[in-house]
Amino acid sequence: MNRTFNASALARLDLKDFIPYDAPYYQDVIKLDANENPYGFPPEVLVKIYRAASSLDISRYPDPGAKILRERLADYTGVNPDNIMVGNGSDEIILNLMLAFGSGAKFAVAAPTFSMYGEHARIAGCAKIEVPRSSDFEIDASGLKSAASLPEVKMVIICSPNSPTGNATPLASIENILGDTSKIIVVDEAYNEFGGESCVPLLSRYPNLVILRTFSKAFGLAGLRVGYLLAGRPVINELLKVKQPYNLNVFSQTAASVVMENLPVFRERVARILEEREVLFAELAALPGVEAFSSQANFIMFKTPLPAEKIYRGLLTRGVLIRNVESISLPRCLRVTVGTAEENRAFIKQLGDVLKNCAA
Amino acid sequence: MNRTFNASALARLDLKDFIPYDAPYYQDVIKLDANENPYGFPPEVLVKIYRAASSLDISRYPDPGAKILRERLADYTGVNPDNIMVGNGSDEIILNLMLAFGSGAKFAVAAPTFSMYGEHARIAGCAKIEVPRSSDFEIDASGLKSAASLPEVKMVIICSPNSPTGNATPLASIENILGDTSKIIVVDEAYNEFGGESCVPLLSRYPNLVILRTFSKAFGLAGLRVGYLLAGRPVINELLKVKQPYNLNVFSQTAASVVMENLPVFRERVARILEEREVLFAELAALPGVEAFSSQANFIMFKTPLPAEKIYRGLLTRGVLIRNVESISLPRCLRVTVGTAEENRAFIKQLGDVLKNCAA
Repeated sequence: MNRTFNASALARLDLKDFIPYDAPYYQDVIKLDANENPYGFPPEVLVKIYRAASSLDISRYPDPGAKILRERLADYTGVNPDNIMVGNGSDEIILNLMLAFGSGAKFAVAAPTFSMYGEHARIAGCAKIEVPRSSDFEIDASGLKSAASLPEVKMVIICSPNSPTGNATPLASIENILGDTSKIIVVDEAYNEFGGESCVPLLSRYPNLVILRTFSKAFGLAGLRVGYLLAGRPVINELLKVKQPYNLNVFSQTAASVVMENLPVFRERVARILEEREVLFAELAALPGVEAFSSQANFIMFKTPLPAEKIYRGLLTRGVLIRNVESISLPRCLRVTVGTAEENRAFIKQLGDVLKNCAA
Repeated sequence: MNRTFNASALARLDLKDFIPYDAPYYQDVIKLDANENPYGFPPEVLVKIYRAASSLDISRYPDPGAKILRERLADYTGVNPDNIMVGNGSDEIILNLMLAFGSGAKFAVAAPTFSMYGEHARIAGCAKIEVPRSSDFEIDASGLKSAASLPEVKMVIICSPNSPTGNATPLASIENILGDTSKIIVVDEAYNEFGGESCVPLLSRYPNLVILRTFSKAFGLAGLRVGYLLAGRPVINELLKVKQPYNLNVFSQTAASVVMENLPVFRERVARILEEREVLFAELAALPGVEAFSSQANFIMFKTPLPAEKIYRGLLTRGVLIRNVESISLPRCLRVTVGTAEENRAFIKQLGDVLKNCAA
């Protein structure tokens, strides 16, 4: 019997106080916390996925190169398949970027933004430099350029449309940075199908541009974990060194390929979400004391007069799960996903109730 | 336009010469290279998976804690669900181990063995110490113990049954190491269902023991990428810091849970593979000049009088894909998966042909 074993003494010192990403997993709530597609996956596409999957042999390792999916993505994006890499969610691709370019170095990011960039960076041993966005959440292009000019900074990340603030960055601002630096500029376009300009037209001109995309939002495949990256071949060659060879299972490869062959239903749903977003925005803004921030994504950030945790807990007690995004730069802010009309009405009703009760 | 961009100049120096794991992806060959289950996935279980999957909402993020699957695994292994973690293949779990404990330090491994330990270690910035196995591929327990005693070594890995050599390590040898060190001892039991003693009974006594398992071999789910780890809670707490929160998609979680509820068909197939292994072994050993090494897994390593690459290429030309595992410690060695009876006969026939033609 071994009495001296101490796992944390063997673990990396730099992760000693690291608190893992805590993803609450509630059932039986109105789930407006994760920017998923609220309409459920379209049954007519699901039937096609199962039909396509029926010819698969799941007892064989998947295609490490995901050839068919990359061809479908080439059709969708207009980018050559050689400039596409797929991942087990874009989460995995962010970790790959950090491992290939960031370990032992630094990355800069326009903040506040998606927390997983920082978490994957820590895991890969890459330090973060936050370049604050302005009061209306626009990126600070010159601040990002000076960060990029530091020798230890290998990569800059801009999320557009940005989570959780909802605003998109104009293409001209991104091009301004791209042309000024020889560092990698990652633009996370997870929410691109809902608004904002895509950087895809810039890809052929800027070898340092990397674009991230996901099937988890507009395409309703969050459960199957499919993300992809668009970049020049030299960047992809470095990423292949750190990519798990069999990173994307065969069912998810197939499902995502079928989605790419059935775009109209997803486009209709995106249009419906955009309509609902405008209704929800107006309702939020009409609540006394609430400030709603206009959004180009499938979620809305808002600020209330109360501590965000109080709002978050109050809503959860009433069966509505949203995201508390409060931080020093986002005081009293929360983020709500645009749900179905019924979900949005329930959320507004309960939020009104929480605001009334807590203020009393 | 940016003319100075150089992706490899931004990439990690320590991966400069790193050649990514090259997984050949051939269609229309007799595939005996990856130790998959050769019988195809059982259709009656596949129907149950699709039935279970029909109630899933794939547009929602999967359960990050994989609660149901861990409960099924607890039933199968007799280990508490809190001591189980699941991964996107055991590949991902190996990377997690390296990131949590190995980065900036070293691990020791009984070699020759599965190449991915070393590859994931390099990705995580962890150096490898190879402790050679004996001429009959037994581990060098005292060599591993002295490696473990080095302050910079955080972890020791033993694959049992070992790939590609096929032999299993007796429990007593592993217990001998476990009790002597306060470092982590990882036993990769990917092939445990085919032979060798499992370390599971030692788990409650040794907090430094970590066991890896997979659904890719005996359970015919290589295409869906499901692996799992058994360990004490302090080790798992460190691993959760580096685990992707949504690492295992909902379809794979469901499929693996259904497999655990339908064990008899897989046990029958394992029994059939073991019978075929003995036939294949006898046939291999009977080929002139061929030395076959006895195996407790679903593959057999063998040595021929010719360079392994010649055998590998000759077989591939003839439509049979196996694995070339030649190295300084395994001269002229190849590894063949135990396939169906027909596949094994075809392999033996073509190997005989290659040996005759190349020697001539």
